Amino acid sequence: MDDIAFEDRKHKRDKRSFLSVSWQQLAVVGLVAVLGVCLGVLIGYFSRGGTALPTDSWEYMLTHEGPAWVSQRLIDDISAANIEENLRLLTQTTRLAGTASDLQGAQYIRDRWLADGLDHVMLTPYDVALSYPTTPNTVTMVAANGTVVFTGRRIEEGFENDPDAVTYYSAYSPPGEVEGDLVFANHGSMEDFQYLVDQGVDLAGKIVIVKYGAVGRGDKAVNAEKFGALGVLVYSDPGDYGNPDGPNYPETWFLSGSGVQRGSLNGDYGDLLTPGYPAKEYAYRTDINNITATGLASIPTQPIGWEDAATLMRHLSGPAAPSDWQGGLGFNYSVGPGFVGPYANRKVHLKVTNQNVLRRTYNVIGTIRGSVEPDRYVLYGNHRDGWVYGAVDPTSGTACMLEIIRVLCALVKSGSWRPKRTIVFGSWGSEEFGLIGSTEWAEEYVKTLTQRAVAYINVDIAVMANDTMRVRGSKLLQTAIFDATKKVPSHERSLVSDAGNRKSRMKRAGLEKSLYETMVENTPNVNGQPAETPRFLEMGRGSDYVVFYHRLGIPSVDLMFVQNREKPGVQPVPIYPAYHTAFDTFDYVKRFIDPEFKAHQAVARVAIETVRVLSDSMILPFDILSFADKMQAYLTGVRLEHGEVLTAQGVSLEYLESAVTNFTSAAVRLERKIEDVNKLNPLDVRALNDKLLYLERAFIDPLGLPGPPFLWHVAAGFSRFNSSSAAFPSLTDAILDDSIMNPEQRLDAINKRLSVITFIIQSAASILTEAGMES
Amino acid sequence: MDDIAFEDRKHKRDKRSFLSVSWQQLAVVGLVAVLGVCLGVLIGYFSRGGTALPTDSWEYMLTHEGPAWVSQRLIDDISAANIEENLRLLTQTTRLAGTASDLQGAQYIRDRWLADGLDHVMLTPYDVALSYPTTPNTVTMVAANGTVVFTGRRIEEGFENDPDAVTYYSAYSPPGEVEGDLVFANHGSMEDFQYLVDQGVDLAGKIVIVKYGAVGRGDKAVNAEKFGALGVLVYSDPGDYGNPDGPNYPETWFLSGSGVQRGSLNGDYGDLLTPGYPAKEYAYRTDINNITATGLASIPTQPIGWEDAATLMRHLSGPAAPSDWQGGLGFNYSVGPGFVGPYANRKVHLKVTNQNVLRRTYNVIGTIRGSVEPDRYVLYGNHRDGWVYGAVDPTSGTACMLEIIRVLCALVKSGSWRPKRTIVFGSWGSEEFGLIGSTEWAEEYVKTLTQRAVAYINVDIAVMANDTMRVRGSKLLQTAIFDATKKVPSHERSLVSDAGNRKSRMKRAGLEKSLYETMVENTPNVNGQPAETPRFLEMGRGSDYVVFYHRLGIPSVDLMFVQNREKPGVQPVPIYPAYHTAFDTFDYVKRFIDPEFKAHQAVARVAIETVRVLSDSMILPFDILSFADKMQAYLTGVRLEHGEVLTAQGVSLEYLESAVTNFTSAAVRLERKIEDVNKLNPLDVRALNDKLLYLERAFIDPLGLPGPPFLWHVAAGFSRFNSSSAAFPSLTDAILDDSIMNPEQRLDAINKRLSVITFIIQSAASILTEAGMES
Repeated sequence: MDDIAFEDRKHKRDKRSFLSVSWQQLAVVGLVAVLGVCLGVLIGYFSRGGTALPTDSWEYMLTHEGPAWVSQRLIDDISAANIEENLRLLTQTTRLAGTASDLQGAQYIRDRWLADGLDHVMLTPYDVALSYPTTPNTVTMVAANGTVVFTGRRIEEGFENDPDAVTYYSAYSPPGEVEGDLVFANHGSMEDFQYLVDQGVDLAGKIVIVKYGAVGRGDKAVNAEKFGALGVLVYSDPGDYGNPDGPNYPETWFLSGSGVQRGSLNGDYGDLLTPGYPAKEYAYRTDINNITATGLASIPTQPIGWEDAATLMRHLSGPAAPSDWQGGLGFNYSVGPGFVGPYANRKVHLKVTNQNVLRRTYNVIGTIRGSVEPDRYVLYGNHRDGWVYGAVDPTSGTACMLEIIRVLCALVKSGSWRPKRTIVFGSWGSEEFGLIGSTEWAEEYVKTLTQRAVAYINVDIAVMANDTMRVRGSKLLQTAIFDATKKVPSHERSLVSDAGNRKSRMKRAGLEKSLYETMVENTPNVNGQPAETPRFLEMGRGSDYVVFYHRLGIPSVDLMFVQNREKPGVQPVPIYPAYHTAFDTFDYVKRFIDPEFKAHQAVARVAIETVRVLSDSMILPFDILSFADKMQAYLTGVRLEHGEVLTAQGVSLEYLESAVTNFTSAAVRLERKIEDVNKLNPLDVRALNDKLLYLERAFIDPLGLPGPPFLWHVAAGFSRFNSSSAAFPSLTDAILDDSIMNPEQRLDAINKRLSVITFIIQSAASILTEAGMES
Repeated sequence: MDDIAFEDRKHKRDKRSFLSVSWQQLAVVGLVAVLGVCLGVLIGYFSRGGTALPTDSWEYMLTHEGPAWVSQRLIDDISAANIEENLRLLTQTTRLAGTASDLQGAQYIRDRWLADGLDHVMLTPYDVALSYPTTPNTVTMVAANGTVVFTGRRIEEGFENDPDAVTYYSAYSPPGEVEGDLVFANHGSMEDFQYLVDQGVDLAGKIVIVKYGAVGRGDKAVNAEKFGALGVLVYSDPGDYGNPDGPNYPETWFLSGSGVQRGSLNGDYGDLLTPGYPAKEYAYRTDINNITATGLASIPTQPIGWEDAATLMRHLSGPAAPSDWQGGLGFNYSVGPGFVGPYANRKVHLKVTNQNVLRRTYNVIGTIRGSVEPDRYVLYGNHRDGWVYGAVDPTSGTACMLEIIRVLCALVKSGSWRPKRTIVFGSWGSEEFGLIGSTEWAEEYVKTLTQRAVAYINVDIAVMANDTMRVRGSKLLQTAIFDATKKVPSHERSLVSDAGNRKSRMKRAGLEKSLYETMVENTPNVNGQPAETPRFLEMGRGSDYVVFYHRLGIPSVDLMFVQNREKPGVQPVPIYPAYHTAFDTFDYVKRFIDPEFKAHQAVARVAIETVRVLSDSMILPFDILSFADKMQAYLTGVRLEHGEVLTAQGVSLEYLESAVTNFTSAAVRLERKIEDVNKLNPLDVRALNDKLLYLERAFIDPLGLPGPPFLWHVAAGFSRFNSSSAAFPSLTDAILDDSIMNPEQRLDAINKRLSVITFIIQSAASILTEAGMES
């Protein structure tokens, strides 16, 4: 019973433990429940969208910056040895556009990129007008009886038996056979010819010989033709490109007597048969035998080496050339016409066999698809064609581009990173004939690129000398580039091994010199800004960035290692001496340009970091305040340079000034918005980025000058009459244009351009703000 | 003890209950914990981002469609009575652009919009070239002795003492005083004048009288001048606009004898002094006394009423006019020159005092800020200026716009809804002089609009007759508009009360006829599509949509209630008879056009629903398949109309065909992508929308025809030589242009245009796809 009673009591107690528990038991259960709920809330909350989001999920990537380690990893992975090997491989064949090597080179690049793992690779063919000699062009000296007493070279020494190396010629020079007395005309500028005329030298019926430099390659013949000359010979003077007293190449990098700068006379850009439109199979083409373009004359032009130039010029008759026309040929230059004494009856005979032909040229386009904004493109490009082997121009750039792609693809393939935006690489064809491949591609995809391209980075010649890196381009990109150079070790005495790792990097901290510091030392900014920053130059018009920047308004930058001309003891050259000659080979680079490829490595590192920051930052790293400062500087420039002239004509800069002020304050306000933006809201971020993306587009005015040369950037461009100033070029032109005789017409032209520039800057301010519509 | 023992046992037992609980107790605690965790997980999960997100939070709106009830609510809230009251208020003053009423009218609109609660309202002034008579222009008949035997009216009957009503004139006609024999030249087309010459009628030194119609207002004088005429009189023939035998206005809507259609001769658009650029204070302006534009002749033009035309034409001498030149004046028309019998020595004397003057005109711009994508603009516009009181043109549209804004603002103010995208309203100035206000505004904000505008909806004349609604515009908007008309009850026998509520709506279900059904009945599509759909017409060039559609490529639509000319018993008119006359008053609308304002209500409802769907749908409701079909139809049209001619010249349409095929398949693929898009990823949605947004932009080619008239839409436009076809107008022009005599030049022109059109369609396909870049 006791047992039973116990059992009974126990039973009762158990019942009570279910139905009427003690306060302790209740507390326990309650505590467990509360803890459970809390735990659950935490699990539930973070399982949905908190830090527990996988970092490779789109939800995470949409609202977070890319991982911080990527930057250093990419920089470290760029290998100088790989770039050297790329260059060695790529320079085993010649690279002339439109020949068999055009397609073969493109296929090689395509295969490398596919092997590296780019997401998409394609060739884009265009049929374009190129120009080649049908048989080697000849320059001879002929005696009165018709005997040829001297025949100039056809190709560089050592390349006579190379079937692939093209003989000396100037592309798009018309064919022609002419004979006449020789006249030396310095650089062939209008002033040079006028000087000769003023000295009583009649140019009609003469063959003119001129030095490279001062005016464009095509302008020399255009000018000569105006004065009645029959043909033009052009050479690189050893005073500019060589060591007059030796040694020259192959002992040094200076130009030896048989080296000839080939090149295109075409001063426009893009295929000459399809201006404004892509050279596709369906394209309407103008007559290939009737090509017109800036720089194309109807008299023939032929480039020659300075050895042959010396032979031709040594016995020139006539007055002595002025002292600033003299050069390094080793004798005093006279101007002619014709020769002295026993040579007096000799004529110079020029035969140019060039023909314009329709040839297929290829770009290779390769992409890394963006993870978050695949419809935003960061463009990176370099041309593939060169005049002969083109080791420096353009293959130093191609060698870097291949290494950049290898490094990016390796990281993407590893699965640990993918850029937010799409990266598009372009290996352009036929740049040397007039930026043709890049232009045709941009023309084909003009609508898409206008909407979606973020920026264009151009590395054509990566290294033409290994002193310091030169940066040119849109001020919007200045900070992005400078920040990259601060992360990149200087090529001068870098302690980084190619496979640099974190430990050695940390040891080095504070010791290592950055490329930025080297640039500040070598090329400090001298244009009014503190000299603690490197120089940042105006964009030029000599490489594939032209269509992207000057026609479409895509912020662009051009990177190149160059000579530091200000360094004591340096013999400055206008460009590396082997430029566009057959001597531009791997050997030349390895011995004279960048033996350890450290400069190549440095430019590739800056480029890859720039690509990364543009493709992976949530907010585009565009420096709108520097851009606004540049507008202010342009305005100041106009005021300083032309203020008096304008005031005298009653022209007021008041509206332009107020537009620039409006633009500046719009930039400041947007900068503040950028700081305050809610990065968790992808559309707020996108809207801000779109304002930045379309800012420089606003500076494009196709109404102004609708036809070629399609230079539509209203703020930064080229004055036809003042090559030193790039500020508001159309305004400068209106002020300086000699052909406007009537003061009323000039005033009209000035006011018209001022009005357009004011409008454009106001439009740019509207792009940065909401233009009274969104608020 | 028992007690103590008990206490002791209890203590032991209690200890055991903590340290060694029973399995039941463990189960309970475990269950509670598990339940707690589960509950917590649910709470945590949904508290973060699930259905518990407040529907007015940006996180919610970012990833969800707007509420479904909004559509019906907006439609229901549009009140016919309010529109009538708006019209009554707005038509109490005259509306001539550039006069005091321009600013006063703008201020009135601004104040209404501010009171309604638009987020932002501003006036945008432009200084533009307008044209007015300095003193009333006169048309007289003069006897040989110089006595004036007849003086024409200066203004409509009943308006003689209205100081604000402008007298008869044609804007931009040059001033001039001329006298000569009268010649009747039908509509004043080139063919009409040529016919007269062929009949031996010499036009030199004559005054020409022509009927409105067939050719543009300005073309009549341009043509007449070519044939040597001194001046032009133009009138509306009662055979077209009136009841020849009465009754006419004020008994009926038909034009009575003193009614005169004013209008601008300017055939271009935008301010004539600042082509291409906004007419701001900083603008460069061409000479106001030397204006050139399409449609501007150097001989004067003056419009007159048909009563005066009858007086002048009744005694014309010369041969009888051909039967198709006859009209409703009540006698047989002869062509002249001069008068018969006793009137033979009488001349017609015309004095035009018009002057071009720089005047300020105003737009009112008002916005509702978008909640999710404030940087995407849905544009809606209507002009504010009219020739006299302008009740139909344009105030019927303004009355609707005010009601639409009231309804939208009321809902936004209630806090229950805000559209995802920004809505921008424009009340345009100086439309009547050449679409000036809208064009200058679009020119000022061209960069912003090109990037951000989604669509433009134009309702100028809302109702010119109340039979059926006519829709014109981009095929991209066809489905959006038709879907809206399916939701809107027909104006014919609507059962909806203005304050319709859900109950009565449900009762009506299945009974009510939609506007869509009315449109199918009245104006079935006859262009090859099944007649179950209403007609959807090509965009015109007569109202403020021109700059948005034909120059910027912003998908646009124009809505108007019109006469059903196919209805038995209807007397068709080219346009409502009081058009541009002083008779276009509130009274005219109330009595003849739309007495109950049901048609006004219907068009406003379609418009508000279209604004809603464009501004609030996550995916833009653009019908790319209809758009692609249209391209196919254009191509078929070219093949049918010109195929033989083209084949005979060896022109192949092959590339164009393949471009259209590419475009179509790109459209189909994008349509599939739209179905599959992850709507939770805002950037995926935005990228899709951007493809849709920029599609029609791709059809704009500013390179083609850079100057005025700035008609840059390559696919849909206007042939100068075939007004019935709008397909690829530049191609049609190249085929038909009479001035091209040389077959080679014609072939060249055709091939050039074909190439551009092919390129443009390929570009549009690239916009829809990734152009080989993103994948």
